[in-house]
Amino acid sequence: MSLKIAVIGLGYVGLPLANALSKNFQVFGFDENKKRIKDLKLGIDTNKEIQLKDKKIHFSNKLDDIKSCNIYILTVPTPVNKNKIPDLRIIKKALKNIATIIKKKDIVVLESTVYPGFTSEIAAPILEKYSNLKFNKDFFCGYSPERINPGDKKYKLENIKKIVSGSNVLTTRKIKKIYGSIIKAGIHVSESIEIAEAAKVIENTQRDLNIALINELKIIFDKMGLSTTKILKAASTKWNFLNFQPGLVGGHCIGVDPYYLTYKANKIGVKPKVILAGRKLNNSMGNYFANNFLNFFKKHKIFKKKKKF
Amino acid sequence: MSLKIAVIGLGYVGLPLANALSKNFQVFGFDENKKRIKDLKLGIDTNKEIQLKDKKIHFSNKLDDIKSCNIYILTVPTPVNKNKIPDLRIIKKALKNIATIIKKKDIVVLESTVYPGFTSEIAAPILEKYSNLKFNKDFFCGYSPERINPGDKKYKLENIKKIVSGSNVLTTRKIKKIYGSIIKAGIHVSESIEIAEAAKVIENTQRDLNIALINELKIIFDKMGLSTTKILKAASTKWNFLNFQPGLVGGHCIGVDPYYLTYKANKIGVKPKVILAGRKLNNSMGNYFANNFLNFFKKHKIFKKKKKF
Repeated sequence: MSLKIAVIGLGYVGLPLANALSKNFQVFGFDENKKRIKDLKLGIDTNKEIQLKDKKIHFSNKLDDIKSCNIYILTVPTPVNKNKIPDLRIIKKALKNIATIIKKKDIVVLESTVYPGFTSEIAAPILEKYSNLKFNKDFFCGYSPERINPGDKKYKLENIKKIVSGSNVLTTRKIKKIYGSIIKAGIHVSESIEIAEAAKVIENTQRDLNIALINELKIIFDKMGLSTTKILKAASTKWNFLNFQPGLVGGHCIGVDPYYLTYKANKIGVKPKVILAGRKLNNSMGNYFANNFLNFFKKHKIFKKKKKF
Repeated sequence: MSLKIAVIGLGYVGLPLANALSKNFQVFGFDENKKRIKDLKLGIDTNKEIQLKDKKIHFSNKLDDIKSCNIYILTVPTPVNKNKIPDLRIIKKALKNIATIIKKKDIVVLESTVYPGFTSEIAAPILEKYSNLKFNKDFFCGYSPERINPGDKKYKLENIKKIVSGSNVLTTRKIKKIYGSIIKAGIHVSESIEIAEAAKVIENTQRDLNIALINELKIIFDKMGLSTTKILKAASTKWNFLNFQPGLVGGHCIGVDPYYLTYKANKIGVKPKVILAGRKLNNSMGNYFANNFLNFFKKHKIFKKKKKF
């Protein structure tokens, strides 16, 4: 049977993936955003990640257009809400939509960041409920976390090693084959979907915490009147010192992924102190840098006093 | 003027240093421990770090024997007490002793971990008080942090880049020349003693926190029944994931150095949340691993019930 792949969600993850896959497979690109689909049909990627020249991908915002596919890859956003709780509405809605079109033997692969257990505990039941098909008997699931660093010119989809996992051996093998045909850096087959989910969520958590440490050091050294830059430069001459810089943690993943992990941890009764201490500090750095900036201006009298008349 | 160097404290830092320096300079090795001096005179290093063959170092436990030196390098331990407060008694006593023998133009270099500011705020005043000499006029100071990893076969004194700093330009130049003659990996000249002190104290702090994160992840994944080893293996396939393993943080430095930094931070009114969260977690891991171990035995019924008679 020939593979027809639908990529659901055509952002900075989905579009490069659809583009790469389209060299080897028949690929459908789905996004609910009409404007995005219209642009993509004209060959325009407003994210400027991809050159869409040969128009091999069938772009659409209609579910009907992708119902003939047998592989569905979800690359939709999984943000947090203002209380830093995972906001799963987009991915749940996407799963519900896919459920209405999947058929026997289809495979649904998630690429979005989720907490360990999400695919089997939440995604599969949604797919079962709205498809009237049985998970791991009629349809199958996989998890292959995206590792895209938007705007990164060095590390792109093809040269970042990819983790794949599936709900059974045959599914894992199929998913491995699909990604293996486009990823030059190689494939790591994970022992289970949960392990792949956990691996994804800790990658940015580690990065977040390391930046938090450097931010905390900056606060201490600022107060002491010492240059953090010079201190880091000196420390970096040790072979195993890790080169992180103070700064704001924004972006789609680094500041968000840790909350997916801590949400799940709290649910199972573990209160993650270290991860949350790092998150809290990084969240406060916006104010810290803004205040530093204002103090600098005040000190150098860059704000002129208003003349009194 | 020819250099006569005294190395004060002949542990895992001082002895390799004295040994390396003795190839180029006249070196005196001082330690208060009579047994250690007796062993070393016989060519025996009970730490098994150094092969003392040619007996070039003049070992002694008498201050009188080192008073003709013009460079004094302190490699004494700087531990913490049971309340995790820097225990500076050993280094203060060593400074007091040296103060009684230093002369004009002598240089005192610290290698021990201290908090940023210690050399100028604590060490120099002690040296002034008991020597009746003036700091940076009569005698001079330097800081060149030790980076020895006891037992490490790959990274040894000679192939670890060394930070040097001095209380004025000429002193820095002299210290650079001394260490430069033995360190093959090169010398990093730090802009000030405080920056060198800060660089030292953050190196192990970073390592400690990274291990703390992995320990926290292990606690979460254990509770979920997931293999931390397998998750770390998967995450490590990302190019920028840092390879740390769960475990106990012991040793002379990693678990101790962060307290020197947090002690100073508290003194200047900054409460380090991230660093201390990491420290607290790592301190609790002894119990955690012990309980895991006991549960494993219980589960596998390795402890046999006592027979009742």
